[in-house]
Amino acid sequence: MEPKIGVIMGSKSDWETMKHACDILDELEVPYEKKVVSAHRTPDFMFEYAEQAQGRGLEVIIAGAGGAAHLPGMVAAKTLLPVIGVPVQSKALNGMDSLLSIVQMPGGVPVATVSIGKAGATNAGLLAAQFLAVHDQSLMKRLEERRDNMRKIALESSGDLL
Amino acid sequence: MEPKIGVIMGSKSDWETMKHACDILDELEVPYEKKVVSAHRTPDFMFEYAEQAQGRGLEVIIAGAGGAAHLPGMVAAKTLLPVIGVPVQSKALNGMDSLLSIVQMPGGVPVATVSIGKAGATNAGLLAAQFLAVHDQSLMKRLEERRDNMRKIALESSGDLL
Amino acid sequence: MEPKIGVIMGSKSDWETMKHACDILDELEVPYEKKVVSAHRTPDFMFEYAEQAQGRGLEVIIAGAGGAAHLPGMVAAKTLLPVIGVPVQSKALNGMDSLLSIVQMPGGVPVATVSIGKAGATNAGLLAAQFLAVHDQSLMKRLEERRDNMRKIALESSGDLL
Amino acid sequence: MEPKIGVIMGSKSDWETMKHACDILDELEVPYEKKVVSAHRTPDFMFEYAEQAQGRGLEVIIAGAGGAAHLPGMVAAKTLLPVIGVPVQSKALNGMDSLLSIVQMPGGVPVATVSIGKAGATNAGLLAAQFLAVHDQSLMKRLEERRDNMRKIALESSGDLL
Amino acid sequence: MEPKIGVIMGSKSDWETMKHACDILDELEVPYEKKVVSAHRTPDFMFEYAEQAQGRGLEVIIAGAGGAAHLPGMVAAKTLLPVIGVPVQSKALNGMDSLLSIVQMPGGVPVATVSIGKAGATNAGLLAAQFLAVHDQSLMKRLEERRDNMRKIALESSGDLL
Amino acid sequence: MEPKIGVIMGSKSDWETMKHACDILDELEVPYEKKVVSAHRTPDFMFEYAEQAQGRGLEVIIAGAGGAAHLPGMVAAKTLLPVIGVPVQSKALNGMDSLLSIVQMPGGVPVATVSIGKAGATNAGLLAAQFLAVHDQSLMKRLEERRDNMRKIALESSGDLL
Amino acid sequence: MEPKIGVIMGSKSDWETMKHACDILDELEVPYEKKVVSAHRTPDFMFEYAEQAQGRGLEVIIAGAGGAAHLPGMVAAKTLLPVIGVPVQSKALNGMDSLLSIVQMPGGVPVATVSIGKAGATNAGLLAAQFLAVHDQSLMKRLEERRDNMRKIALESSGDLL
Amino acid sequence: MEPKIGVIMGSKSDWETMKHACDILDELEVPYEKKVVSAHRTPDFMFEYAEQAQGRGLEVIIAGAGGAAHLPGMVAAKTLLPVIGVPVQSKALNGMDSLLSIVQMPGGVPVATVSIGKAGATNAGLLAAQFLAVHDQSLMKRLEERRDNMRKIALESSGDLL
Repeated sequence: MEPKIGVIMGSKSDWETMKHACDILDELEVPYEKKVVSAHRTPDFMFEYAEQAQGRGLEVIIAGAGGAAHLPGMVAAKTLLPVIGVPVQSKALNGMDSLLSIVQMPGGVPVATVSIGKAGATNAGLLAAQFLAVHDQSLMKRLEERRDNMRKIALESSGDLL
Repeated sequence: MEPKIGVIMGSKSDWETMKHACDILDELEVPYEKKVVSAHRTPDFMFEYAEQAQGRGLEVIIAGAGGAAHLPGMVAAKTLLPVIGVPVQSKALNGMDSLLSIVQMPGGVPVATVSIGKAGATNAGLLAAQFLAVHDQSLMKRLEERRDNMRKIALESSGDLL
Repeated sequence: MEPKIGVIMGSKSDWETMKHACDILDELEVPYEKKVVSAHRTPDFMFEYAEQAQGRGLEVIIAGAGGAAHLPGMVAAKTLLPVIGVPVQSKALNGMDSLLSIVQMPGGVPVATVSIGKAGATNAGLLAAQFLAVHDQSLMKRLEERRDNMRKIALESSGDLL
Repeated sequence: MEPKIGVIMGSKSDWETMKHACDILDELEVPYEKKVVSAHRTPDFMFEYAEQAQGRGLEVIIAGAGGAAHLPGMVAAKTLLPVIGVPVQSKALNGMDSLLSIVQMPGGVPVATVSIGKAGATNAGLLAAQFLAVHDQSLMKRLEERRDNMRKIALESSGDLL
Repeated sequence: MEPKIGVIMGSKSDWETMKHACDILDELEVPYEKKVVSAHRTPDFMFEYAEQAQGRGLEVIIAGAGGAAHLPGMVAAKTLLPVIGVPVQSKALNGMDSLLSIVQMPGGVPVATVSIGKAGATNAGLLAAQFLAVHDQSLMKRLEERRDNMRKIALESSGDLL
Repeated sequence: MEPKIGVIMGSKSDWETMKHACDILDELEVPYEKKVVSAHRTPDFMFEYAEQAQGRGLEVIIAGAGGAAHLPGMVAAKTLLPVIGVPVQSKALNGMDSLLSIVQMPGGVPVATVSIGKAGATNAGLLAAQFLAVHDQSLMKRLEERRDNMRKIALESSGDLL
Repeated sequence: MEPKIGVIMGSKSDWETMKHACDILDELEVPYEKKVVSAHRTPDFMFEYAEQAQGRGLEVIIAGAGGAAHLPGMVAAKTLLPVIGVPVQSKALNGMDSLLSIVQMPGGVPVATVSIGKAGATNAGLLAAQFLAVHDQSLMKRLEERRDNMRKIALESSGDLL
Repeated sequence: MEPKIGVIMGSKSDWETMKHACDILDELEVPYEKKVVSAHRTPDFMFEYAEQAQGRGLEVIIAGAGGAAHLPGMVAAKTLLPVIGVPVQSKALNGMDSLLSIVQMPGGVPVATVSIGKAGATNAGLLAAQFLAVHDQSLMKRLEERRDNMRKIALESSGDLL
């Protein structure tokens, strides 16, 4: 199936975080592609990727990066597809630099930012799916089931407080 | 026209910020509704609002709040529509509390967070429009024109550096 | 004995922190119940829990959560019992996000916030007991003994500086 | 009527903040006293105040201070009454120093911390009242009415978004 | 004379800060050009500018931006000329977001970051001049005179402490 | 009388803060001198000043600076007199940069750091006086009177809470 | 020999940090005493200690504490001896809470604050010695030798960069 | 070959970070020297080093330091060569203190600051090389090849996302 979501990241070391976005998309049967697209090392490829994304049928881009994280914002500057930014936890500043670099975009070019690290990547996958689900009842159903399941597990987990 | 976007905020004092989201939606001709929905003062109404949003035809919710900003995350816990969170600038901590309360959601319940304050509200409007535009060519065209215009103004503004 | 304190937490992974609240309540012979109540995964159960707490005879609620920690504030919005919030130490931001999400409540809905992590959970148990002790002389006596003991241990510990 | 709440503050310049706690207590008809008690300028008086509070019939102490704010924690070390700490907004660091000095108490001596500044002082008054209300049905009723009123005002305020 | 320094900024509102870089270059008689080059609004022009800078005879680029400040890092990714980044003071976070977005570049693509705001812009001008002065004795002399003058003014200013 | 305290500051703009140190020394009749000594603009004079301080009869140095505040630490590296550092409130970061630049000295070269801004300057004057007073009973007496007075004013100020 | 320095700390767990102050005093042959004095667990003993310190011949007090670190400031409120505060590194917030609780004292009651953790404890010992050395030539000589030695080790250490 | 770059650091413990600057210079065949130059332990040597640097043929100085990091700024105050500052990651505050101490220089004395830790040291080496390369075509070519290689590796690394 043609990918509807592009999952990109600034470096292969971000994969440990970003794979959690892909896990969600796999679980929800949302077709996606994944790539290393570095704002600083492959700027031309980044622009090309962003420019062609809509034409290639992508509907959402998930972009993860750490430190001075420019990938999500620059991709957002080159496409009108919704871009979800995942702040990867950085070494010295624990991802506070990643978060501010991604979320504090100027008026005009939005990036939908999620939480730092693994939880953020998971949520990026879910958010992308939720966008698609507005026009895809079957996906909405899978999301509902996932949430229902999550609820049940939480309700039962009081038994584990020992 | 039936609203497709719900713009909600925790208090009427957030309106000074959140009106910038509405301005964008007006400009882009995206039908929306706006309401004060307070997580802490009207929790039941918040849940009712979130539960009924999808059934009433809303496709995206934009929620702005400041300080211990629980509105976006709690609405996101009660609907599978995409929720965009706008951190309103707070008095003592300049919106850092608002930002962290909104963006640091646990895995399972995403909130699409934008920047603090006015720029964030503007971007929330644009992000919501970009979601709709994936399935609305005429809206996509208006977004392209807006971005084009923004580009032209920027290119011409070098002349103002005096 | 009927529980007077409800100790709730957003996830079973918070138990490692929150058990320190329960240890104190055990030590002081204050009857309590403990449960996983997730603001984001079980929002309806959270509201039900908060609404029924007073009727079921609870007098104080201790709520622990991490990251975008909405549980204490949302429970406080649904009950007039005193709510004590424990910021659980988060992975990336060390609990600063948890602290600000819990403590920075708007005027109208207070949460009694304690310190981040284990010390905070211990203090939540003590604070709850101190509330009850205002009308329970025997509990006040146990608190006095505990504090006296703490004082003696501190006074003797200079001998350990080797 | 004999005061049940002691509202104390480190300096008369904190009054601008702390009067919001007193306003709430006035509104809810909770008898209180108010005093300047400075940890650093009147340490002996502070200890005397804390030691005698319980004997004088106080049931809760509300203590506000800014900067290296030691008043709430030191009073808490000298009494077993519940102590509510209000971080007053400081000049250079906007109250982050006040907040951390008050909330980060070690295990053994809790301070119930509320938000920075005016909202925190309001909430300190409410929290104190909620403590008392557990054993005072008429006060509980006044709290319920207040909250009800707050809810109604919020629900109606959507009309003001112009 | 052909410009040796390109002074660029993300928006004309940055000019109030960036003019201080130009003032220094004027004072030191270093030829420069100034332009609005927006990473997010004019990404293609930014790339074109960065790609052509070296060929057009520029030797250093000074780039100022605020918030999620991507301009300096993205220009640095597209040229091997030294790029000096000026963090413009932002509204909500006082330039901490600008600073981290500029300085925390990943290994491989350096940005020479200076202090936040006006002092940083001044220093960007001086740093650029110092680079050129390594191969330009007359410019080095002007820098020495400036520094000498600065020293004299400082030495004399004790008389003003009244 | 020969000065016993050297009050130095990085720029005459620091005088507005540092004069509060001098006010205290005047009040306590401690002889002092005041000078602009800039680490960055007059480094040689700074070294000369620090080297000669002890020989000239100074017993304590009070050094105030803002931003990347190197004056206190560098003076401390060039003398064995106690050096008190006053973090002057900076424009963008409110003195957090000044504070960390002054207080976080490596093991081997201490700087006695006080609070940010005016209160810190006042305290620097008092701290210097307290050092001298250990060997000066009459000064100790003046300090005691000052503290006594401060206590009385605080005790009386409850009357002003209106 | 009678102790001239009192080294106190809030808990025996602070000893791992504070022993570095004692190591310096041992090395410089400055007589000292060491004790656990807890502001929160032994407040009366703390006041007694502070009140009697001067009479017992102490000339400087070094006080270390972590988290909501009230010990240095409260001791300083009860004595006119110089008090040096050592911020012990805390678990969640890495000592930022300790630092702000100690350094941000209000005008009137100074605490000479040093850096967080081990380096700070070392510097507290040195600072105390430097105070004494102003009136003790032999100690000044030992300080000079120590600094000389430190300088030589640094100069030779370039050989280790391999 | 005569060194063109001076790589200095405050302590031999900084070598683990700073060697990454030297690795880059080795790789790019830029002659350099490396030394421990401590602002606080060897202040006179630091001044001598900075004063003689230009005369000895150095063209850029790279200075790394941690905590209250005064080395880069003080060297910059004593030479007109460009100084690149590397904030070494500190123990308690993760290098935020190092960063602010280095980057927040006052107008008049610039330091070209790079990112915290290893990535910053790498970038310091590259930045120094980029300065030289403006007048050294063969070095520019090596830089281009390095960047080209970096690009290729990034483009190929998508294959590793497994």
